[in-house]
Amino acid sequence: METIRIPRIMREISKDLRAKGKSIGFVPTMGALHEGHISLIKRAKQENDITVVSIFVNPTQFAPGEDYEKYPRDVESDKEKLQTIEIDYLFLPDVESLYPKGYSTYVTVEGLSDKLCGKFRPGHFRGVATVVCKLFNIVRPTRAYFGQKDYQQSLIIRRMVEDLNFDIDIVVCHTIRHEDGLAMSSRNLYLNEQERKSATVIYKALQQGEKLLKEGAEPLDVKLKMMEVIKKESLVKEIQYVGVFDPETLDEAKEKQKKYLLAVALKIGDTRLIDNLLVEV
Amino acid sequence: METIRIPRIMREISKDLRAKGKSIGFVPTMGALHEGHISLIKRAKQENDITVVSIFVNPTQFAPGEDYEKYPRDVESDKEKLQTIEIDYLFLPDVESLYPKGYSTYVTVEGLSDKLCGKFRPGHFRGVATVVCKLFNIVRPTRAYFGQKDYQQSLIIRRMVEDLNFDIDIVVCHTIRHEDGLAMSSRNLYLNEQERKSATVIYKALQQGEKLLKEGAEPLDVKLKMMEVIKKESLVKEIQYVGVFDPETLDEAKEKQKKYLLAVALKIGDTRLIDNLLVEV
Repeated sequence: METIRIPRIMREISKDLRAKGKSIGFVPTMGALHEGHISLIKRAKQENDITVVSIFVNPTQFAPGEDYEKYPRDVESDKEKLQTIEIDYLFLPDVESLYPKGYSTYVTVEGLSDKLCGKFRPGHFRGVATVVCKLFNIVRPTRAYFGQKDYQQSLIIRRMVEDLNFDIDIVVCHTIRHEDGLAMSSRNLYLNEQERKSATVIYKALQQGEKLLKEGAEPLDVKLKMMEVIKKESLVKEIQYVGVFDPETLDEAKEKQKKYLLAVALKIGDTRLIDNLLVEV
Repeated sequence: METIRIPRIMREISKDLRAKGKSIGFVPTMGALHEGHISLIKRAKQENDITVVSIFVNPTQFAPGEDYEKYPRDVESDKEKLQTIEIDYLFLPDVESLYPKGYSTYVTVEGLSDKLCGKFRPGHFRGVATVVCKLFNIVRPTRAYFGQKDYQQSLIIRRMVEDLNFDIDIVVCHTIRHEDGLAMSSRNLYLNEQERKSATVIYKALQQGEKLLKEGAEPLDVKLKMMEVIKKESLVKEIQYVGVFDPETLDEAKEKQKKYLLAVALKIGDTRLIDNLLVEV
């Protein structure tokens, strides 16, 4: 595994590889790698000649007052994991090399970026679209891999790739969960023991919602039931959204349809957690 | 010369060419080709294995109430010109193929886009940055050619290319003028005979400004003198900006510096005309 820190050098390496006809699988991450990331990386390895993983805690996707400063960083442990899986390149830029003095270009995906998480994290998806656009131009992947846990992010990136005519396949992989159902997330590291237990309420609510939808319940009734499940958990401090949505538009599903997105965002203590399920009935 | 209308096909062609090690020179245009465009295309031909010209009147860069509908379109005459110069590919997409239903991604270069022309053409440079980003991903040029007449545009595109890590050389070519000094522009076609004569006042003012700066005049005095020259021309209906600016920031130059941008934007009748000179003292 080679570690590359300079964007220009990474771009030259990728260019050479693509010129030689190699396919590049790319997994962009913010580090604090967990089994969710590992599963994306393994998939990228299977499907491509070369695998590139980036670790970059992207300041532009944190809203003011969010956890940019305290976001978990453990590059040495991440590197060990990546060496074990045997990836080809770790792209590890610093903030100044991706956002030098005078930086002023931003990519916005309108509409989708203002819904669900976008309502609670102003500027978040603009930061995501911008850094992913930059990383795509640097790494020049054939395929890029994202987790379904960040469903809205994957939808926005697909939209950006189509709209800006990128020649990249976006592969969205299913969410990896702990045994008790909690979705893998770097932010789970923030939870104390009690909070960690109570966080399982999210998947419980999603499963309850799935069951009801499959039984033919109305989306609005399902939402109320999910809310009820979550409200029983006393450590939940703030419910940002819970409900049944259209998987394409992210609008609330008010009538029956064939596919639904069940999605939850809430805070346990100070820790914001999200999760979702796609349901076909 | 092959004419390609489908973005996906153009992208495949470019990808194949680049994989074969060919360099691609790209000249994006809105058609109504004049000698200014022709000089860019000739330069692209000299410096690259393959030359691609696009003709696309981009709706997203026209502000509401501007001349999108009446912008001069003469594809047959343009094609003849391009065939004479012997370019390799004409990329001629329609609006629906570049902005299909549901399109929602925009690229913004903050700061620079709000100055000079940006003040008078809200959204213009967002439209420019967006379509150029798309065209760059479709055509995958080695080098892209722009005219200095649209100085602010070239500055914004350079910024976007650097910020979004595109691997493309932006080549800015000097302005081509009629014998009487008027900068070549597709919009000159809007001018009647009298207006066409009075339009020469723009270059006269720029030349006057250059002379004074080289003689050591203060930027603010130069601006006043240029204004005076222009105000003598009775067909000038609206002066949008006239003055001496910093070529990097586009802010008004208030003190002496080594390089200046002299720039003018005004309306003669309903026709908006711009021009500029870079001056080193």
